[in-house]
Amino acid sequence: MPLMFEKPLGMVDTLPALYDRASEIRHNIEQETGRWGYRAIQTPSLEYYETVGEASAIHDQQLFKLLDREGQTLVLRPDMTAPIARVVSSSMKNEPLPLRLSYCNALYRSQQKEGGVRAEFEQFGVELVGDASMNADGEVIALLTSTLRAAGLSAFRLAVGHVKYMNALFKENVSQETANVLRRYLYEKNYVSYRQYVDQLQLSAEAKNRLKHLQRLRGGPEVLPEAKKITDNREAHEALAEIEDLWEILEDLGVSESLQVDLNLVLHIDYYTGVVFEGYGDSLGFPLASGGRYDELLGKFGRPASATGFGIRLDWLLEALNHFEGETLVRHSTLILFSKERQREAVQEANKRRQNGEAIIMQNRAGVPDVAAFAEKYKEVISFAGETDDE
Amino acid sequence: MPLMFEKPLGMVDTLPALYDRASEIRHNIEQETGRWGYRAIQTPSLEYYETVGEASAIHDQQLFKLLDREGQTLVLRPDMTAPIARVVSSSMKNEPLPLRLSYCNALYRSQQKEGGVRAEFEQFGVELVGDASMNADGEVIALLTSTLRAAGLSAFRLAVGHVKYMNALFKENVSQETANVLRRYLYEKNYVSYRQYVDQLQLSAEAKNRLKHLQRLRGGPEVLPEAKKITDNREAHEALAEIEDLWEILEDLGVSESLQVDLNLVLHIDYYTGVVFEGYGDSLGFPLASGGRYDELLGKFGRPASATGFGIRLDWLLEALNHFEGETLVRHSTLILFSKERQREAVQEANKRRQNGEAIIMQNRAGVPDVAAFAEKYKEVISFAGETDDE
Repeated sequence: MPLMFEKPLGMVDTLPALYDRASEIRHNIEQETGRWGYRAIQTPSLEYYETVGEASAIHDQQLFKLLDREGQTLVLRPDMTAPIARVVSSSMKNEPLPLRLSYCNALYRSQQKEGGVRAEFEQFGVELVGDASMNADGEVIALLTSTLRAAGLSAFRLAVGHVKYMNALFKENVSQETANVLRRYLYEKNYVSYRQYVDQLQLSAEAKNRLKHLQRLRGGPEVLPEAKKITDNREAHEALAEIEDLWEILEDLGVSESLQVDLNLVLHIDYYTGVVFEGYGDSLGFPLASGGRYDELLGKFGRPASATGFGIRLDWLLEALNHFEGETLVRHSTLILFSKERQREAVQEANKRRQNGEAIIMQNRAGVPDVAAFAEKYKEVISFAGETDDE
Repeated sequence: MPLMFEKPLGMVDTLPALYDRASEIRHNIEQETGRWGYRAIQTPSLEYYETVGEASAIHDQQLFKLLDREGQTLVLRPDMTAPIARVVSSSMKNEPLPLRLSYCNALYRSQQKEGGVRAEFEQFGVELVGDASMNADGEVIALLTSTLRAAGLSAFRLAVGHVKYMNALFKENVSQETANVLRRYLYEKNYVSYRQYVDQLQLSAEAKNRLKHLQRLRGGPEVLPEAKKITDNREAHEALAEIEDLWEILEDLGVSESLQVDLNLVLHIDYYTGVVFEGYGDSLGFPLASGGRYDELLGKFGRPASATGFGIRLDWLLEALNHFEGETLVRHSTLILFSKERQREAVQEANKRRQNGEAIIMQNRAGVPDVAAFAEKYKEVISFAGETDDE
């Protein structure tokens, strides 16, 4: 039996100082996406496994599952893209496309080990549904940039890749099974194992070189012509042309300087079908935001439409903004200590100050176990105790 | 197998217009409780059944339960009072009392029937931990009043009762078992069944009269002397003295006019130990807020302390504020439609307007399936299409 103060694995409490900081960031982000015309929606924490759970493409062992009374399996939502696809295809089915939506919700992914990995975390994200043009990809990348800036993150990098380029390159050179192993190494950014694995494959020296060359396709737009050289596949060339097109759009949008091409980019969610991207804070070793195009998902919910979007892990964004300072609980508050017979005066003073936006704690001295310990943290202490002054 | 667009029983989507309205109300409420020195915290959605689940005193069949990998039973939090008691006793154990905390979280209570009853709903609440004086009860009731006003609810009533008065009256007159049946009827506000049940009990006519008299103990503070007459029990008289004391405090706080005494008040959560209260919007037939004193709960978590607090159901508050109007998705936005060659101009216009706080949707015409249907809902449409003007 767990001890009374214990929480399940991967679950955390958010105390006031961090809560306020997170609220402020969330508010700034929502203001910014609002200015780009994105409207926020909320979906339930529980969905049917057979609909959203399976469509979510989060590994089954990471899902929190439970049974409802009818014996249907429910899941705690592991991502927001599938629930939004459900909403766009049902409650919002009469809204004309393109639709611009945002959300800020807890997501749930079960953890198997101790070690501080969260099983519940907040994600802010947007989805742009129904615009198949590269402008849509450009808009969500520009919006991600703009959102991170609004949150106060000035130093970050965005890496842009393309699912179809990698798929084509793998298809030309290796089996589906081998491609999955390679993708897994790239997803883990385990480049050493990738190379070792390629080396021991039964392939021509040329094929091995092409697969290893992929790893160097990272940098400015100058890697695009280089990428063209290692494959003649039409789909691969189309993918590169899309990135070129995107680059121009992002230059027009004024956000190309924090970008780089990375044709090794593999995201953990496998429903992406085109341009994908990841955002890194300069101070963090792992991405805090990611996204991309997923043109097949909406069709599963009965309203076929192209779509792209991004998600930001708010806990990781807070870490990247590491100028967060712990503070005592009541630093910004004024304490009015009173005795019962002078409550009326105390109330008047409190009302006056609260109307000016001050945070005022009113406290009957008789209710405090230890007045000195309680009072020492306030920026100001006002006392209405003992006999009244005015009578 | 559920259809792709279906949601589990009692689960709802919140679309943009309602989401914005709820955000605004939540913001106003948090501002107000902040001015009273309450600091917000957040706890996980999942807790151990053996700790928070059992302490929550929500009926077992209403809990959403699941198993973790170690075979421990987890619950989706059914209320916030027990989780906050856990936090106060663990992560915040070094903070001096009294502690003033608030929260705004989803709660989960499984539903057994169709019929629009929510299984997931948002609750805003406060807890004042560690002040045993009646001023603490007065403060949370005054803060509830103030919070409802800040949310825009001008017409509401608060009913104030006391657990100990009712307990003493029942103990003097009936068995524990019978008392539970009577409490159940009062909780359901099923006064007809209460009277019928009393009538068929094997009791003296006097005892029956006392139990029926309880139902009339509702109104201004003039019911308190009346309540005194039907019992000589010391605890009952102390409870009435507390309410008298509370009334004076609430008069000082300037919030007595929306109050009434209701000695029939029974709340669904059974950990209350003193003053309890419920808030009604004038337009609703059911309470949208409730709370009271629970002096025994903190001890279960290893930090014995008195406590009182309230919770507001945000969905019901929205209903009570029924001046909510549906709106089209984009009523407040301006649409900038552009063609690719004029993107740069469009970006400049959008940036300028967004900096002024306007909500601007930028849309490449080529990305819209049906331009007329898409554009018709915007308050303004600006076009940068065709050849450039300035070159």
